[in-house]
Amino acid sequence: MTAEPGPRGAPVIVTLLTDFGAADYFVAAMKGVILSIAPGATLVDVTHEVPPQEVRSGAFTLLAAYSDFPPGTVHLAVVDPGVGSARRGIAVEAGGHRFVGPDNGLFAWICEREADARVFHLTNRGLFRHPVSSTFHGRDVFAPVAAALAAGVAIGEVGDEVEDQVRLEPLRAVPGEGGGVRGVILHVDRFGNCVTSFTRDDLPADAAPRGFHLSVAGHDVRALRRFYAEETLPGRLFAIWGSAGFLELSANRDSAARLLAVRPGEPVTLAVG
Amino acid sequence: MTAEPGPRGAPVIVTLLTDFGAADYFVAAMKGVILSIAPGATLVDVTHEVPPQEVRSGAFTLLAAYSDFPPGTVHLAVVDPGVGSARRGIAVEAGGHRFVGPDNGLFAWICEREADARVFHLTNRGLFRHPVSSTFHGRDVFAPVAAALAAGVAIGEVGDEVEDQVRLEPLRAVPGEGGGVRGVILHVDRFGNCVTSFTRDDLPADAAPRGFHLSVAGHDVRALRRFYAEETLPGRLFAIWGSAGFLELSANRDSAARLLAVRPGEPVTLAVG
Amino acid sequence: MTAEPGPRGAPVIVTLLTDFGAADYFVAAMKGVILSIAPGATLVDVTHEVPPQEVRSGAFTLLAAYSDFPPGTVHLAVVDPGVGSARRGIAVEAGGHRFVGPDNGLFAWICEREADARVFHLTNRGLFRHPVSSTFHGRDVFAPVAAALAAGVAIGEVGDEVEDQVRLEPLRAVPGEGGGVRGVILHVDRFGNCVTSFTRDDLPADAAPRGFHLSVAGHDVRALRRFYAEETLPGRLFAIWGSAGFLELSANRDSAARLLAVRPGEPVTLAVG
Repeated sequence: MTAEPGPRGAPVIVTLLTDFGAADYFVAAMKGVILSIAPGATLVDVTHEVPPQEVRSGAFTLLAAYSDFPPGTVHLAVVDPGVGSARRGIAVEAGGHRFVGPDNGLFAWICEREADARVFHLTNRGLFRHPVSSTFHGRDVFAPVAAALAAGVAIGEVGDEVEDQVRLEPLRAVPGEGGGVRGVILHVDRFGNCVTSFTRDDLPADAAPRGFHLSVAGHDVRALRRFYAEETLPGRLFAIWGSAGFLELSANRDSAARLLAVRPGEPVTLAVG
Repeated sequence: MTAEPGPRGAPVIVTLLTDFGAADYFVAAMKGVILSIAPGATLVDVTHEVPPQEVRSGAFTLLAAYSDFPPGTVHLAVVDPGVGSARRGIAVEAGGHRFVGPDNGLFAWICEREADARVFHLTNRGLFRHPVSSTFHGRDVFAPVAAALAAGVAIGEVGDEVEDQVRLEPLRAVPGEGGGVRGVILHVDRFGNCVTSFTRDDLPADAAPRGFHLSVAGHDVRALRRFYAEETLPGRLFAIWGSAGFLELSANRDSAARLLAVRPGEPVTLAVG
Repeated sequence: MTAEPGPRGAPVIVTLLTDFGAADYFVAAMKGVILSIAPGATLVDVTHEVPPQEVRSGAFTLLAAYSDFPPGTVHLAVVDPGVGSARRGIAVEAGGHRFVGPDNGLFAWICEREADARVFHLTNRGLFRHPVSSTFHGRDVFAPVAAALAAGVAIGEVGDEVEDQVRLEPLRAVPGEGGGVRGVILHVDRFGNCVTSFTRDDLPADAAPRGFHLSVAGHDVRALRRFYAEETLPGRLFAIWGSAGFLELSANRDSAARLLAVRPGEPVTLAVG
């Protein structure tokens, strides 16, 4: 079979996200498997620099990138501390995209966002590369299944639909003390910007004029900037709407994560007024 | 629209150069935007490891790479310390190639080299991804404009032609003291080789037999080697014609930049005899 | 000429492996050259993070990856400490794949594995990019020859067949003292796993029940695990069948290479019982 043409006759895109790094043969082996099954597929790396086994970091990066690809894209994601153990492999259909990888929460936030998400357990071993090793399911299970989907295999053929997939803490903010809402630091990027789970839905449209404050790790941040260069005081902490749609904590010419001494998972409270 | 076939019916190539690194979702989001607008385009990474906000380093790397791509290629470059401020976005047509990015000098050396260079101010917001964020013009402005050019939109449709684009110090050497010529260190590569702005035009064809010397940071370099392995004395500084067409300062099994204690921008004088 | 369709009408794949890193223009220049000669070729990076000039590391990585690509793929590999000196360039045809690079052992293990391997000396300068620099044969010699093969040029046109290509120590184990077999550490990956040259052919099928031991650098390793998570004692050394088909030495949550204080080339003895 060859890669089934996508919308407008273009080749189907397969994206790859892993924690394998760029130095070893792992990513290339997966790409060789994909192109053997779906010749002509367009491969796009999301990143292979997810911190080793950091499922949340991989989940955030994929959440921030997937919706800029055209519908029909297949997203292959392998951050897989449980490889070889009993954890399941899954394929997900959500928002017109397909996702393939281990069932450990990598796709949980995408499933939370897309109301039509359906999850399938990878049990059709006829789609796998054989022999299936116990150490490299990226090459032997997930890549060939992703390629099969790119080549036109229906998602229902990978295995049975399930509803008990692994979930992460929800993206949606919950009521906090004193009238605010409570969220979490989702991700720290390489500049030290801290991405919170707050979206524009969590902040009233008229918040800026009335003032707001973010409380995190004993610090209070009250400045909201429209772009990075707007803040000119070195080391000054400020909030900014990040390009992934979440409120971020940044510092002028410095790492907000270092100044705040926080990591992903740290609670944050947002209060207005 | 789909990607317009390039010369000989091949897909149009879009290259990408940024300082975004490989760990975040930024590059993938740009690629998703491009492939949504120009399905079938061939994407090639030049590098995403430009040192953060180092416009000259990005400008050198693009200068050294662009002319090996076929005519018609679109080069998307985003090293953009001024994102969100008043700096303009531009598209450039030069030497049969197209370039898209911020107006901060990234394309200045290419415009100096290509006599037919024309520069256009990106004002046609109909080509942008909406809403346009204030922090990620790579995804929202430059990627969709590059994709539009790849898909066949004429460069004149992106906005008005301008002639006051931002320039860098010229590549061309100027007369120095004592009969020599004066240039500059353009770039230091990861091996510590220092790329000067001198080309073969600055050195008479018969220079090697007559002798020459390069003066930089209080050091005098007089050895000219044809290939790296020709120099066998460890730590010995020598000059060599680099593969980008510029005279480079190198050291056997060592970093010339460290031995000379120089950085990009350091003046260099070339004298013959 | 355009890229000749591969099997099933798909574009020919050209893979790239170098020690050039991701920060400079070197890899992009090679890709521009390839796409100028073979428009429509599918480019796949194996890695550009081979440790500088470490031919064995590059040879292992290519050995582990090439056979997952479809037949007809062209593999371009440039780890080339001798660039500019008298070392030859070669093209290899083996197992349905083609390989192009310097004659320094990069393809030696593939030639040992594939019984039909044939080696050709690159002497047809009509296929090169001119002028040929003395410092960057990746762009000027190997990339254009690889692209010519991808575009349909017969391998016999690159130059004469030779039989005296550079070899590395053989992959095949040799009899050791006391009834065991003797091999070598081929590679250390970024997690510190040590890949030995032993394959399943070197270990009797019933070895696990009877017990076996690996001797390396004064250590004795007797545990054989099926997957990484199976070993739960932190710092415990164990052996495991790696995904490239070789026996590997690993440690739970630690670097086996650091614990053993070994590097590639270290002898290893395998004894059963």
